[in-house]
Amino acid sequence: MRYDQAAVRVVLDQVRADGRRALTAPEGKRVCEAYGIAAPQEGMAASAAEVVAVARQIGFPVVLKIASPDILHKTDAGGVLTGLNSAAEVEQGYATIMANAAAHQPGAVIDGVQVQGMLGAAHEVIVGAVTDPSFGKLVAFGMGGVMVEVMKDIAFRLAPTSHQEAVGMLDDIAGAAVLRGVRGAAGVNRDALGAVIENVSHLVHDFPEISELDLNPVFADSAGATAVDVRILVDFAAAPARPRPSQHDILRAMRRIMQPESVAVIGASPDDGKIGNSVMKNLINGGYQGQIYPIHPRAEEILGRRCYQRVTDVPAEIDIAIFCIPARFVAGVLAEVGEKGIPGAILIPSGFAEVGEDALQQEVVKVAREHNVRLMGPNIYGFYYTHRNLCATFCTPYDEKGAVALSSQSGGVGMAIIGFSRSAKMGVSAIVGLGNKADIDEDDLLTFFEQDPNTQVVAMHVEDLKDGRAFAEVAQRVSKHKPVVVLKAGRTAMGARAARSHTGALAGNDAIYDAVLRQSGVIRARNLNDMLEFARGLQVLPTPQGENVVVVTGAGGSGVLLSDACVDHGLNLMAMPPDLDDAFKAFIPPFGASGNPIDITGGEPPSTYRNTIKLALDDARIHALILGYWHTIITPPMVFATLLQEVVTEARALGIHKPVVASLVGDIEVEDACRYLVDHNILAYPYATEKPVAVLGAKYRWARIAGLL
Amino acid sequence: MRYDQAAVRVVLDQVRADGRRALTAPEGKRVCEAYGIAAPQEGMAASAAEVVAVARQIGFPVVLKIASPDILHKTDAGGVLTGLNSAAEVEQGYATIMANAAAHQPGAVIDGVQVQGMLGAAHEVIVGAVTDPSFGKLVAFGMGGVMVEVMKDIAFRLAPTSHQEAVGMLDDIAGAAVLRGVRGAAGVNRDALGAVIENVSHLVHDFPEISELDLNPVFADSAGATAVDVRILVDFAAAPARPRPSQHDILRAMRRIMQPESVAVIGASPDDGKIGNSVMKNLINGGYQGQIYPIHPRAEEILGRRCYQRVTDVPAEIDIAIFCIPARFVAGVLAEVGEKGIPGAILIPSGFAEVGEDALQQEVVKVAREHNVRLMGPNIYGFYYTHRNLCATFCTPYDEKGAVALSSQSGGVGMAIIGFSRSAKMGVSAIVGLGNKADIDEDDLLTFFEQDPNTQVVAMHVEDLKDGRAFAEVAQRVSKHKPVVVLKAGRTAMGARAARSHTGALAGNDAIYDAVLRQSGVIRARNLNDMLEFARGLQVLPTPQGENVVVVTGAGGSGVLLSDACVDHGLNLMAMPPDLDDAFKAFIPPFGASGNPIDITGGEPPSTYRNTIKLALDDARIHALILGYWHTIITPPMVFATLLQEVVTEARALGIHKPVVASLVGDIEVEDACRYLVDHNILAYPYATEKPVAVLGAKYRWARIAGLL
Repeated sequence: MRYDQAAVRVVLDQVRADGRRALTAPEGKRVCEAYGIAAPQEGMAASAAEVVAVARQIGFPVVLKIASPDILHKTDAGGVLTGLNSAAEVEQGYATIMANAAAHQPGAVIDGVQVQGMLGAAHEVIVGAVTDPSFGKLVAFGMGGVMVEVMKDIAFRLAPTSHQEAVGMLDDIAGAAVLRGVRGAAGVNRDALGAVIENVSHLVHDFPEISELDLNPVFADSAGATAVDVRILVDFAAAPARPRPSQHDILRAMRRIMQPESVAVIGASPDDGKIGNSVMKNLINGGYQGQIYPIHPRAEEILGRRCYQRVTDVPAEIDIAIFCIPARFVAGVLAEVGEKGIPGAILIPSGFAEVGEDALQQEVVKVAREHNVRLMGPNIYGFYYTHRNLCATFCTPYDEKGAVALSSQSGGVGMAIIGFSRSAKMGVSAIVGLGNKADIDEDDLLTFFEQDPNTQVVAMHVEDLKDGRAFAEVAQRVSKHKPVVVLKAGRTAMGARAARSHTGALAGNDAIYDAVLRQSGVIRARNLNDMLEFARGLQVLPTPQGENVVVVTGAGGSGVLLSDACVDHGLNLMAMPPDLDDAFKAFIPPFGASGNPIDITGGEPPSTYRNTIKLALDDARIHALILGYWHTIITPPMVFATLLQEVVTEARALGIHKPVVASLVGDIEVEDACRYLVDHNILAYPYATEKPVAVLGAKYRWARIAGLL
Repeated sequence: MRYDQAAVRVVLDQVRADGRRALTAPEGKRVCEAYGIAAPQEGMAASAAEVVAVARQIGFPVVLKIASPDILHKTDAGGVLTGLNSAAEVEQGYATIMANAAAHQPGAVIDGVQVQGMLGAAHEVIVGAVTDPSFGKLVAFGMGGVMVEVMKDIAFRLAPTSHQEAVGMLDDIAGAAVLRGVRGAAGVNRDALGAVIENVSHLVHDFPEISELDLNPVFADSAGATAVDVRILVDFAAAPARPRPSQHDILRAMRRIMQPESVAVIGASPDDGKIGNSVMKNLINGGYQGQIYPIHPRAEEILGRRCYQRVTDVPAEIDIAIFCIPARFVAGVLAEVGEKGIPGAILIPSGFAEVGEDALQQEVVKVAREHNVRLMGPNIYGFYYTHRNLCATFCTPYDEKGAVALSSQSGGVGMAIIGFSRSAKMGVSAIVGLGNKADIDEDDLLTFFEQDPNTQVVAMHVEDLKDGRAFAEVAQRVSKHKPVVVLKAGRTAMGARAARSHTGALAGNDAIYDAVLRQSGVIRARNLNDMLEFARGLQVLPTPQGENVVVVTGAGGSGVLLSDACVDHGLNLMAMPPDLDDAFKAFIPPFGASGNPIDITGGEPPSTYRNTIKLALDDARIHALILGYWHTIITPPMVFATLLQEVVTEARALGIHKPVVASLVGDIEVEDACRYLVDHNILAYPYATEKPVAVLGAKYRWARIAGLL
């Protein structure tokens, strides 16, 4: 729709001129009207006689509300009276409200009383908007009363939204069914209510000085949606925009940084135990084939490589400079790095913002910006890019090549990634420490990984997003073709942000992160192990071609637990077609259970596993397979593992690529069997029913995000 | 309070005489009054004139409701009108309701119209009662409207409840805060509303023929609680009570069964691969020191033990008979077992109810009851009692002695228990297969484990509870001094379907299971791995002496993730007292973070870990410790592991027993370090932050259940 921006500008200019932070109710109404948001019939009155006159004009029953820039919570102030049916009641009501307001807040400026026509039975909902320091403007939607106040059942989206997204928010809340109508009650007009959300989202986007907005309540019924009360807060001191290179510039720099032809090591050292020595060794022993230039004030050569006093002395182009010198020397050398035209500095040293040395960090950033150098870190372990055999780090070298790129904000998590990757045979393309994120952050990395043919899955440990909106924009694009897993740490910490509005108070830090990550197509991991398992699983598992999941189990008990897990992780246990049911029945004993799960029972020989698994792989109606193996003497763990590997390999040779995950229960030999299967690219877990299903669930979530299902 | 049972009996006798299944509204009101449940002022009317007369007597405004035994959902039938303010409106309303009822359900018997005084603003809540096939009578409580209909926010308790329990139900729902009053609205009178729940619970307990009851709505405000509408359904065909031996008899039999002096093996076999051979070998090789009597129709001896043709031929007392013969022969031999006075039969064979042979199973149960033989199974792997070196099973022998007793309804889960126990060094006292649970079930086992000095923790995999009420009663008692962990399989709708096809079990409604398990003091595991980890952790961890948890971490990133997990698992991160904060500060670098988590930072030597951990163990204000280790060169994994083991051992020597759990992140060496720690009874997990905290959380849950905190 066309919005009347000029009308809003007039109102906001007046508010700014008055030095106010809040709009009056009539101002709020005018702003809403300019953006196509319907309000109830109403008028202002400044005396008992005026109240009666306005009420007569609107028609009884009416609602009276105090109008005061100083009273934000009208109900709490006794400033709202509903269902007034006659001139006498209205007159009396005016006196009551004025008395209540005076008692509640002596000296408050009172503009008068607002008289509104009373709306009939409808759903009371809340539409709001907040400003998040990382994500910027968001719209919020929830149902009034208990659902928002107590259940915190509220949906957020980045503003502005499309009409479709706005309508989609009606389904994002737990109480969504109510809005469709329950037990005979009518549902809401979804288009009309969606339009209110959409219009609010454009309003706050168009006028960033609107910091918070509440339409509470909005009365929504099958005919339309009316904003009964409007509250708008403004903040004219806009936050400065975060500098952001163009996508083209990001990519040009990130390509050279992540896949350098040549590397300088600032502070390279011949002495064991020094970081500058570990980095040199990791570069050399890791098998890096590019040029390595140790920079050292005096040494002639280090580990057989010729040294230079300064980077500017190196007679060739350099792609990255790895800093292994104390924090206080960084800014000075960084200027030389800039002069040399090196596009990336890897700042391993700590001693910056993480220990309160914000000024030192800002100085480094300033030098980098002046010289057009991108910074990774500071306070990081460095990074790995396996497909170049590049270990630009003081940690252990790592060389299991694969397609998962991971980043972490914490060194501890980085080391967990390395250990898990090595142990669980998760091949990686890159592991990147982001540390303080003075410059390069997740969206820069995503922009690189998006086009990196060596990377098919991205997993990120995030403590905060410096520029959440930029991340959301890039993630939304990337997640359509490469899965992005995010572990958001600090999700339970309550944001200490001062919020005066209702919606603002409800925007707990994590509610917003959760909403935006979902909107961005990100697969959220709830803990460290999930992030690692999801990353591995998303790489290993082929993409399912449909929603039909089948469980084949030797242990009925596992079948039940695997089914529970399917429900928990949003997987669809296929309703077995009769002909396929018969086909399975032919392979299993008469007292086994066909249907789904298919319980082949515990006493069966390897051939029963083989036949049923093969059938499930062959039949095109089945899209994914969950196996529950039970250790028996007749089919020991390694026999099961090898037959499963064979059947899957045969299917792959025929071009059949379906996700297969396995839960193995039994004596400790199942651990060896799981290792064997993992070595053959089949995900298998001992003593666990939840994990294999959770990992398959992550793959399904991504397939849906990418529109492949 | 005193209930008027005679008045209820009169009403129910009339309903039974009429052959009805539902009470009329006036009957429902009479029943409620007899049990002290307040109803609004009201009267019945059978004509327009009567309606007006009754309404005048009660006073306007009034509510009209159709009174018909045939119309259960009055609102859906257009049979309810509210807020009628005058004689004219009431007269018109009567006509409307009658017309609506006739249209909705032609031919319905109409007793008239109920006229009720209209209650003021109040919370609308629902109090109800249901009859569960396993748990019997339960009361239910929830808030009206969306919260119950859509959010399924409803609390259940076994009936009858105490007053305190009933009031406690107000806090069991997610929307509990509303009942305490939010944003200026008054809360409810908790005593009055609790009394309604309590009285309903006694009503359905005293009159088991009341199969369902709804008080919907109950209007609750700060003054009291009034049941506005009552619906009561009856079922006079009461289910037969499940036979249940006395606790004394259970214990006498279970002691001999679980700790037998002598064992007969029915169907012992000299042939490798036969179940009767595996059982013999496991008994002998497992090191069982009691008498073993192989029973075989012809053999002289098996594996060096003298054979008998029948158990009745054995010239000594026998405690258990292990059946290794086909299903169809079981009943016959069981009679001989009974004649011999053997108290327990271990029925390994399958081929009973789990494959639809219900009659065969019932026959076996009948024979067992006649001869006073308790049955374990059928369809099981057998059982282990390690402190007697007893492996009464065809699976692998198992001998890691410890204090955890486990049971499983499924053989697959049983094998998972064995494998995990062996691999994770979880010492067990018993592993019991319950299979079809034709007789012995979880409450029999609990009754035994309760007094078994070798058992300190009980963990059970449950697909259904044949007698949920008996289980709840025993669990409530046992859980006060020994933790009881339950993995309820089939908890989701899909899982429940699989449970039915597996053992013929009736998987209960999970909301009811969840409520009763909580009420019983049970720690619920959400999946197989959690059950196993909780069982191990509850055994290994000492009981905390208070709620103050402290996190000490070398990796700030781990500290954040561990804090998240603490919130998830209900652990209380202690607010650090200033003097203790200073004490920690003295040990950590100036840029480390004191407070809680205590971030000692990554570059620290072993002494910093040692000093801070020792301080946390020594200071009596700290009750539990979570460690986040980060792999560095200066403090490698095994160095950390050994120092931690030393510090904990030193503390133990001084009588300091605090729960300590550790998360180790780093390269694969952390796996060895974790194994070393676990070998020394310190729980440690590689690449995971969630699991150690979840396990500590389980210990805390139990300490609270047992009233130790």
